[in-house]
Amino acid sequence: MDEIRRVDRNLVHHGHIFDYYEDTMETKDGHRHIWDTVVHNGAAAVVPVRNDGKILLVRQYRNPVERMTLEIPAGKRDSVDESTYDCIVRELEEETGYRAEEVTLLLKFLSAIAYSTEAIDIYVAKGLHHTEAHPDEDEFIDVVAYSVPELKKMIYDGTIQDSKTIAAVLAYSDRFNA
Amino acid sequence: MDEIRRVDRNLVHHGHIFDYYEDTMETKDGHRHIWDTVVHNGAAAVVPVRNDGKILLVRQYRNPVERMTLEIPAGKRDSVDESTYDCIVRELEEETGYRAEEVTLLLKFLSAIAYSTEAIDIYVAKGLHHTEAHPDEDEFIDVVAYSVPELKKMIYDGTIQDSKTIAAVLAYSDRFNA
Repeated sequence: MDEIRRVDRNLVHHGHIFDYYEDTMETKDGHRHIWDTVVHNGAAAVVPVRNDGKILLVRQYRNPVERMTLEIPAGKRDSVDESTYDCIVRELEEETGYRAEEVTLLLKFLSAIAYSTEAIDIYVAKGLHHTEAHPDEDEFIDVVAYSVPELKKMIYDGTIQDSKTIAAVLAYSDRFNA
Repeated sequence: MDEIRRVDRNLVHHGHIFDYYEDTMETKDGHRHIWDTVVHNGAAAVVPVRNDGKILLVRQYRNPVERMTLEIPAGKRDSVDESTYDCIVRELEEETGYRAEEVTLLLKFLSAIAYSTEAIDIYVAKGLHHTEAHPDEDEFIDVVAYSVPELKKMIYDGTIQDSKTIAAVLAYSDRFNA
């Protein structure tokens, strides 16, 4: 791309979740602009499908929107060396107590392409079973299960606004005729 | 929510696209954690549907991913006082030269709920016509049109990874049987 290019990058702050940079961009006519960029390790998310077809979601408090949200299980990679597959197998068990017989890639996803490098690989998990470490379903009080039609209703009425959950549920419904 | 609450917020950097804060969160047991938060004015996006059913997208260079991307038209609000409806009517004309007879809300969308306040209202625009200010279709060389099946193929093969474009195309397809 010749129209604009990055000529400098400065770390403004090394954060806890991500690093924050100011990038100096130069257009073809020589003008320079400062663009903010979030540099993020990347993450993984999963549509966990129970044998009855219902999808597991997690309730959690989200500080940016100051409220509880309903989202598919997800988490950051521990490091850039962790595969998103390993990351989501780990996060699924940590958040729901389930392991899956089959975990397949559904979507490659960039959350906030205008200013963040965050890439989320979104998987579908089937053949769910409780692990021995977490045999009790009641241990995970914030895990809830909904059918695809129930989830679509919550997407279209604004109850679910999380980007990855909307994209994942609609892609799963479309590709698996669910 | 009683499990965790914000007890302090400090501005780390006033950026060009957003402001960057460190929030101090306190859990019920009294432990404190620092969480990074991006505070963003919010944005609007649109699925512009031509009379032949094809959808308009914009090609542009995205610095975080260092490549050209294909996205539905979108833009930030000029200020928190601008409605997302006014924002998207403005952005649609600026980016494509089109105005629409009918603009309706499709999705309320939070891009990166873990660390950003960015909320995007995603609309559907129909009845497109070139404005007098932009009568020439060739003026907008980076605007391209694809059918819904073509877009789904590009979503599932990873050509399109932008969160709002994936969610918007799949929601439009689902709700309008397109």
